Amino acid sequence: MSTLKTTPRADGFHMPAEFEHHAGCWMTWPERPDVWRENARPAQRDFAAVAMAIARFEPVTVCASREQCETARANLPSKIRVVEMSSNDAWTRDYAPTFVVDDFNHVRGVDWTFNGYGGPEKGAYWPCDLDNQIAAKILELEKIDRYKCDMVLEGGSIHVDGQGTLITTEECLLNPNRNPNLSRVDIENNLKEYLGVEKIIWLKMGVHGDEDNSGHVDDLCCFVRPGVVVLTWTDDTDDPQYDRSRDAFERLSRSHDACGRQFKIYKLYQPEPIYFSANEVCGIIVTPNAVQRQSGQRLGASYVNFYIANGGVIVPGFGDPRDRDAVATLSSLFPDREVVQLQTHEILLGIGNIHCIVMQQPLGQIGLRDITEGIKNH
Amino acid sequence: MSTLKTTPRADGFHMPAEFEHHAGCWMTWPERPDVWRENARPAQRDFAAVAMAIARFEPVTVCASREQCETARANLPSKIRVVEMSSNDAWTRDYAPTFVVDDFNHVRGVDWTFNGYGGPEKGAYWPCDLDNQIAAKILELEKIDRYKCDMVLEGGSIHVDGQGTLITTEECLLNPNRNPNLSRVDIENNLKEYLGVEKIIWLKMGVHGDEDNSGHVDDLCCFVRPGVVVLTWTDDTDDPQYDRSRDAFERLSRSHDACGRQFKIYKLYQPEPIYFSANEVCGIIVTPNAVQRQSGQRLGASYVNFYIANGGVIVPGFGDPRDRDAVATLSSLFPDREVVQLQTHEILLGIGNIHCIVMQQPLGQIGLRDITEGIKNH
Repeated sequence: MSTLKTTPRADGFHMPAEFEHHAGCWMTWPERPDVWRENARPAQRDFAAVAMAIARFEPVTVCASREQCETARANLPSKIRVVEMSSNDAWTRDYAPTFVVDDFNHVRGVDWTFNGYGGPEKGAYWPCDLDNQIAAKILELEKIDRYKCDMVLEGGSIHVDGQGTLITTEECLLNPNRNPNLSRVDIENNLKEYLGVEKIIWLKMGVHGDEDNSGHVDDLCCFVRPGVVVLTWTDDTDDPQYDRSRDAFERLSRSHDACGRQFKIYKLYQPEPIYFSANEVCGIIVTPNAVQRQSGQRLGASYVNFYIANGGVIVPGFGDPRDRDAVATLSSLFPDREVVQLQTHEILLGIGNIHCIVMQQPLGQIGLRDITEGIKNH
Repeated sequence: MSTLKTTPRADGFHMPAEFEHHAGCWMTWPERPDVWRENARPAQRDFAAVAMAIARFEPVTVCASREQCETARANLPSKIRVVEMSSNDAWTRDYAPTFVVDDFNHVRGVDWTFNGYGGPEKGAYWPCDLDNQIAAKILELEKIDRYKCDMVLEGGSIHVDGQGTLITTEECLLNPNRNPNLSRVDIENNLKEYLGVEKIIWLKMGVHGDEDNSGHVDDLCCFVRPGVVVLTWTDDTDDPQYDRSRDAFERLSRSHDACGRQFKIYKLYQPEPIYFSANEVCGIIVTPNAVQRQSGQRLGASYVNFYIANGGVIVPGFGDPRDRDAVATLSSLFPDREVVQLQTHEILLGIGNIHCIVMQQPLGQIGLRDITEGIKNH
């Protein structure tokens, strides 16, 4: 693996949209008992279900620590690849490389800086040194060249349409717990330089209950295709989410994407509020290394946190009547994909959902180059 | 990765010779301070030199533990791939998969059982659970299908000519510390079934000083090409090695290979005896988990422990006048390869040498299948 001295934009690379074709996807096996209740066993079942659902559509690799390799292997079918890779927690979306492609379909990866969602004092857990190494490790394992960007960024805090537009939230990207020394313009410039985007749409706040992540956009709003987004929604004016979604709707309504299109916005009605139960909190051991959960704490439940796989859409379910509406809406928005809903309450308890625990790798010419040029070069 | 229920022989697979074309080679980064003196830093330098020498000829992947990934990465050039993989010690030859190929150049791997060179009581170190997982981990990482054989076998205890012949030693393969419940015939049958060989040449003892490994053949004798072997040698009748080499010479002289050829035997004169110094022993911490070294202990120094890379031969040096003779002999025996000699005293102190720390992966159709079929299957 080489670390390049240039930037993706300078080299003609950009981040493709999630709805473009994937080579496969990456996940991490959860294990820490101060985040996942009951020693992470229930969460492991939910993660395995997500891996298996995605593996119907594209290759899946699950990274597991030395201690968990055998458990992961035993709990996943053989078509899913398990590789040893250490982590601090299992939010692959947020620390995996952001893959970028050029017009010749070459693939490279951006390795951002990860600070555990806000650093040692204000983050969700600490340390995060192993998470911060994963992007480089994945790229090296796949023999993909790497760009390193010092800016703190999690993959869940951005969405792109693959045609020059990026959406994000001010709550997260402008949060002083991320890049206190960078201005909005500095951050925009980094996004343009490392993701090859031209236009950044700033939404204000993420979803209520996602304070752990400082309001990642991937719970709030995402692209279905260029010019079309879904937005988490409630009509309940007393719900703290109401103003957040309303504001996002208004900002989107008066924005145009990089190609000058107005956005078509589809609403995905959120489930009834879900709260941490005392029993659930009880199952999580308390350490100084992770934020302590509170009984009665609201969870940021959003159907927007789905994953778009090659021929499918894997969407969270919450045991709520709205589950079916979400599937119906997404089925009509993705007519060529099979919408698969999974009940993922244990992932939600970790303050995230399906999209947060996976990272797509676009289809491209890395393996082929590797095999032919790799030999030739020797 | 699938674990197949059949055997390589049944599927038309066999182990190719080391002098056939490689896709690359695998190594492990040393770290344990009860095997490698001075916290393994001097050994790491020797391992890095071996990796770099081989990387001139073929791709090299170095497996490093969570704790050592960054050190390995920092001490190796970027063309060498570093992947996280835990081990108990760094003898990749002995626990990596034995790769097998078929007539269509498909590649699969045999995962033998590894017992730390003799089990908890009589082995070189214990536990060896992580080493025993590495073959499966490498195969899974490379998406190569796996055969599992319950027989205890280390890669360093066998050599093949790729044309049906295998050489090994009775000292190792018939040692009760390996497979006490298997007869010579049982072992021969397993070798035939899992390596696709037809004829097994039994030498008696390995080299003097290699008791840790129960006399691996890869210090004693190896194939240069079909029908041609090199044998470690001394003319000193007082040296305990004399009778061992003499006996091997006689057995080889009266043997024929699987194709009916008589062996052409070239002698590689061993260096003057090398012994552990008190100072060297002092640098190794003592734990109950590894055999304790003794000052004055003879080391099994042999030029035969070289590695055949795609366009090169990487041969150990001992700071001995015979170093040059070994290079001269090997240069004439491998006229199409560059012979590179490395001073590898720190590896020798671990009771092994260059061949023991590397495992070749033959060139074959795995990556291509992976990229095209992997996608098609999803």
